[in-house]
Amino acid sequence: MPDRLGPPLDTPLVSRLALVGLGLIGSSIARAARLRNLAGTIVAVDRDPAVIRRVEELGIADEATTDPTAGVRDADLVILCIPVGGFAAVAKAIAPALKPGAILSDTGSVKKSMIEQVTPHLPEGVHLVPAHPVAGTEHSGPDAGFATLFRDRWCILTPPEGSDPEAVAKVAALWSAMGANVEVMTAEHHDLVLAITSHVPHLIAYNIVGTAADLEEVTQGEVIKFSAGGFRDFTRIAASDPTMWRDIFLHNKEAVLEMLGRLNEDIAILARAIRWGDGDALFDLFTRTRAIRRGIISQGQETPEPDFGRRREE
Amino acid sequence: MPDRLGPPLDTPLVSRLALVGLGLIGSSIARAARLRNLAGTIVAVDRDPAVIRRVEELGIADEATTDPTAGVRDADLVILCIPVGGFAAVAKAIAPALKPGAILSDTGSVKKSMIEQVTPHLPEGVHLVPAHPVAGTEHSGPDAGFATLFRDRWCILTPPEGSDPEAVAKVAALWSAMGANVEVMTAEHHDLVLAITSHVPHLIAYNIVGTAADLEEVTQGEVIKFSAGGFRDFTRIAASDPTMWRDIFLHNKEAVLEMLGRLNEDIAILARAIRWGDGDALFDLFTRTRAIRRGIISQGQETPEPDFGRRREE
Repeated sequence: MPDRLGPPLDTPLVSRLALVGLGLIGSSIARAARLRNLAGTIVAVDRDPAVIRRVEELGIADEATTDPTAGVRDADLVILCIPVGGFAAVAKAIAPALKPGAILSDTGSVKKSMIEQVTPHLPEGVHLVPAHPVAGTEHSGPDAGFATLFRDRWCILTPPEGSDPEAVAKVAALWSAMGANVEVMTAEHHDLVLAITSHVPHLIAYNIVGTAADLEEVTQGEVIKFSAGGFRDFTRIAASDPTMWRDIFLHNKEAVLEMLGRLNEDIAILARAIRWGDGDALFDLFTRTRAIRRGIISQGQETPEPDFGRRREE
Repeated sequence: MPDRLGPPLDTPLVSRLALVGLGLIGSSIARAARLRNLAGTIVAVDRDPAVIRRVEELGIADEATTDPTAGVRDADLVILCIPVGGFAAVAKAIAPALKPGAILSDTGSVKKSMIEQVTPHLPEGVHLVPAHPVAGTEHSGPDAGFATLFRDRWCILTPPEGSDPEAVAKVAALWSAMGANVEVMTAEHHDLVLAITSHVPHLIAYNIVGTAADLEEVTQGEVIKFSAGGFRDFTRIAASDPTMWRDIFLHNKEAVLEMLGRLNEDIAILARAIRWGDGDALFDLFTRTRAIRRGIISQGQETPEPDFGRRREE
């Protein structure tokens, strides 16, 4: 399977890589880095002893510790793979142990807040290169990760103005080596783009599943039985990690509320079209939306198989 | 593969089965009926000559015609597998050719309107047994169908009061033989249940994809690139057949608008929680919604694989 990501490098990109948080994303980085020899030493840092034990059992890191200060010491690259609500506290805790010239990066889904939380604690000579790999599944924890999670997905870097170009290039090279396509943009633009492509879809999915659970006229058993009609796709999205998503909404408040406002305007127009029996307006929208899906499939961000590969045999 | 649905019956359930409309659903019924020997003769009726040619090439029916009157003549069971906006016109057209004792059924996603459209044209002695298999993919047309589409899915029958029990049992037996679980309820309750489990999720998906396409601050290319964050799941739902879905919204207007109203109340509360930074309210909802997904998986309406079986190798 290494060939699916490319052969191991002769020389690692970084000599000591510290991953803070070994959930789906952190453990996937560990696996990909190991497979392609991207780091001389991979250090796993997680405050949860059970996660550290599991990382040791899985053998996906060279060292593993619950102590963030010890874990990041002497690291050339530290990647925070934690919910976005935790950046300030972790940055404060690890700051004294970061070595001059080290790069501090992350994988958070909100970038403006990440920069605001981390910057006050950043020691002189440490380079901040925020990153966000747009990849994931609805599962969580060190067992959920896999080495090809980032292949053909996009990783967005949002280096603050004046960032060290070499540090940015190093982080870009790491993500490229894990199979990702790298794009650079401002943190503000990132947060707006992700609000519509990720954050608001999740909010909508959580909302519809919650509403369905609370109806009096339709039982929960009925909702479950007849979910194949479309609802079950929303439940997958709404099964994602609650802590991660709570933090995303709290830390990308403005962009999420702005995009939600746009959606509400459009849904009011749709509701009016239904009430008035305006079939043409509905048909026009339902036709236009197909073009976007074709674009997503043709650019490799989705497979064309019906029903997402759910059972189909004949 | 027949063993996945069960062996062919020794004696067909009906001698002459006419399917009107050979799209995803109609062509899947044809395939399943052929595989299990559910009908002595399978007649395919479609007003589109290209569809009839394709049905003949695929060899999934014994007879095929563009003439509805000729197609349903002498049929014991006629199933209308067409968009719900077409029931009145087709019922009117085929009524004179329906034989006494025949059963008229359908596969439409809205049942109150189906009964209202068909009843005025129903000849004396013909039994109306409306049905709705809750199954599908985002693809359309005779090539999209497959014999196991209905296996382990639910098929809801909504016979009007006073229906002939034998006719209802016959339709139930047909769906059971195609692998479906059969449930009986009133047309009114069906339309409410499907509004929340299917119709409103589709409307929401169409809406968010439409809104994303119209933003000025975020380009369509960006929406496509970064869709893996959640948005692409909505585009699958929003890639469904536009005519079918236009008709569903126009014919289940009250239930859809009612459920949309509930959703809007709940999303307003969520937006307020985000604005006020109420993380506990968000976390509570995001945790509750996981239980519904567990129910859907444990009842076989979904697979637990992450990411719906999209590429995962290691």
